[in-house]
Amino acid sequence: MSGAPAPLGAPASGAETAGFFRSRWVERPTSARELEPGTLPRGFRAAGVAAGLKRRGLDVGVVVSDEPDTTSAARFTTNALVGAPVAVSAEGAVDGLRAVVANSAYANVSDGERGMATARESQAVAADLLDVAAEQVGLASTGKVAVELPQERLIEGIANAVANLGDDGLGFSEAILTTDRGPKRASLALELPSGSVRLAAQAKGAGMISPNFATMLCFVQTDAALAAETLDLLIGVCVKRSFDRISVDGQLSTSDTVYALASGASGVRVEQETEDELRFGQALDALLRQLALEIVSDGEGASRVGRVVVRGADELVEPVARAVADSPLVKTALHGGDPNFGRILQAAGQALAGRAPFVVDLEIEGRRVASAGQEHEMSAEEWAALEQAVTGPEVEIELTVPGSGGETEVFFSDLSHEYVSINADYST
Amino acid sequence: MSGAPAPLGAPASGAETAGFFRSRWVERPTSARELEPGTLPRGFRAAGVAAGLKRRGLDVGVVVSDEPDTTSAARFTTNALVGAPVAVSAEGAVDGLRAVVANSAYANVSDGERGMATARESQAVAADLLDVAAEQVGLASTGKVAVELPQERLIEGIANAVANLGDDGLGFSEAILTTDRGPKRASLALELPSGSVRLAAQAKGAGMISPNFATMLCFVQTDAALAAETLDLLIGVCVKRSFDRISVDGQLSTSDTVYALASGASGVRVEQETEDELRFGQALDALLRQLALEIVSDGEGASRVGRVVVRGADELVEPVARAVADSPLVKTALHGGDPNFGRILQAAGQALAGRAPFVVDLEIEGRRVASAGQEHEMSAEEWAALEQAVTGPEVEIELTVPGSGGETEVFFSDLSHEYVSINADYST
Repeated sequence: MSGAPAPLGAPASGAETAGFFRSRWVERPTSARELEPGTLPRGFRAAGVAAGLKRRGLDVGVVVSDEPDTTSAARFTTNALVGAPVAVSAEGAVDGLRAVVANSAYANVSDGERGMATARESQAVAADLLDVAAEQVGLASTGKVAVELPQERLIEGIANAVANLGDDGLGFSEAILTTDRGPKRASLALELPSGSVRLAAQAKGAGMISPNFATMLCFVQTDAALAAETLDLLIGVCVKRSFDRISVDGQLSTSDTVYALASGASGVRVEQETEDELRFGQALDALLRQLALEIVSDGEGASRVGRVVVRGADELVEPVARAVADSPLVKTALHGGDPNFGRILQAAGQALAGRAPFVVDLEIEGRRVASAGQEHEMSAEEWAALEQAVTGPEVEIELTVPGSGGETEVFFSDLSHEYVSINADYST
Repeated sequence: MSGAPAPLGAPASGAETAGFFRSRWVERPTSARELEPGTLPRGFRAAGVAAGLKRRGLDVGVVVSDEPDTTSAARFTTNALVGAPVAVSAEGAVDGLRAVVANSAYANVSDGERGMATARESQAVAADLLDVAAEQVGLASTGKVAVELPQERLIEGIANAVANLGDDGLGFSEAILTTDRGPKRASLALELPSGSVRLAAQAKGAGMISPNFATMLCFVQTDAALAAETLDLLIGVCVKRSFDRISVDGQLSTSDTVYALASGASGVRVEQETEDELRFGQALDALLRQLALEIVSDGEGASRVGRVVVRGADELVEPVARAVADSPLVKTALHGGDPNFGRILQAAGQALAGRAPFVVDLEIEGRRVASAGQEHEMSAEEWAALEQAVTGPEVEIELTVPGSGGETEVFFSDLSHEYVSINADYST
């Protein structure tokens, strides 16, 4: 995509971004080497099994760390309505998890006491089989809401998965999928000043859960040794720059969950405020950003990913970016490959209601289309180039609003006929 | 729709709601009689002409009151980005308008000084031809944004319309349309204690403006005599209960405008805090609510109208109602005739983020489906009845959130394939 601006910290596009780190908006970590995607960091075992929750395919997964000093961190949805797995997992401390149990097909949301009992029972059974405490097992479910998650099948699936734990994460990464087009996973070898460690993650999301709302899940493992607070800090920062920055349809799930476990099995310790932490953090950041972008580009019916960058007053940048990213008019224009910047200005103006005069600068793929809210005069040639520039797989929008000091970005998918089909034509 | 709840103040459905007041959510005013839709109140003349702004059809309209003591009130979009017609019209006092000039096809938004000059010129020309002051002419344009509104054609159209002013509003109501399926208009005869008056309105909206964002316009005329502040008060209240309560896609236009003119030609004075004002207000309220519902049901590709009523703490009801009404998941479910209440709970939970526990009661078409956020057990028979109930042209959702004292409603359209087609497949 010629004429594209150089996004913050992004490398030039081209051959060097091949492999997992496909997006020009993700800086490929310099000290990382890609491993086979199923490769688990040392100390971890995993499995995915078919428990009959889905009509076919894997639907229950377990990841466990065999290291007793494993540390962990977690993030959960901020929706006031949370599923039973989130409610149960968030009850205890989440800094000493040893295992995660995940299932697809049923989200176990809004099923009352029955759902809570199923979550607690699955946690207890997994803990028992893995010889850890119940609160050391993190739960995650994704799929239909307000429908009973069949407890017996889930429990059998957990037992079966525990009996089949092995040293690759491929099955696990498939067991968490719902209507995702395919698994989202990567495994990296990192060369840190203090030694070599591995970092892996499996994610799912954005496919609709026939026909309920999307959930994003992400499971991170590393064999680096990190204090729980260091891991929590890194996960906090990286989630804010990845899964918190994406929108398929502006809808917040009841089940969004990120679990990160550090087994320490590499013997390499990552201390705070060291070059080790910096490089580890860069790799984690790139990994989660690319996974977040995979979720957006796998948005229901999505064919194109947009990135809106907003600069200006701190309190304005977030609402303006969200208004643009969530506008169905902007999203349909993105789908149509239409450089319809009037819709971007309108969405920004809506977020800035009551703050006239409207003085916004707008660039699309590095081309200035509006200055101070007014159309920038373009020659026919410039217009044709702009039209061409918005037909690629990634389209960048940059807005400057009044004020200074704030900058944010949101990645978003387009809105297509398929979105409507997935969400309207299927029945509950 | 059997089993439907009795909405606030709505009459039972059936034969008595035939005619213009089709929605069960609009109380048919008891003292009103429907006139032929083009009938103008006394003192007004109007015309709609084809000025070549559209490829075919009427596109420039003028309404004028011949009474020098005419009073008026206006409401404009709150979008920080406003079109030149709004900017120019809002500059002056809007309590003494004598005429409105409207055009379709071009919205005159984001066209810089050229657009402002065209708006001022059109206002000056109309004022001159009608022998009123420039600030007594209200402007409204709807159509493509960020494209030049051809000034010469507009001016010629205004001159032609003024030369053809007559005593019906049919042409005017057609000249303001863009991709509306048809005109939205009504004319009423009101029997007030102090005498008979007429009340008429013409509206447009929700059709997309190939391919730009929707605008709603509404023009109200009455031959009752009202002090400008009384008219302003009534318009304020009624707009809040009508055009402020609808959402096709959550997108706020840059050009939304309501103008109300009272000629006083009936000789009947409507004073504040009288039975006259009460009845006049009821009729105006019903008129604007029905027109607002016409806009929603004419939403791009819309086939069904939803009403979400939220009760609870004052600061919660509005964000929850907007979250439900604007959720593409709720809208696609409405389109599919799917009683997918998990999506409603999820949208409510998103608006209530950070306010757990989630204790929300939900009724759909008067049937309780969730209590305190948990699924209400339903028999197969009850479920089948619910599924049937959501296939009608109007579907009602009632949510009770924590707290008390607040109540609001939002009317919204469904989201269909046609919406995507209209907004993605057309090119700028």
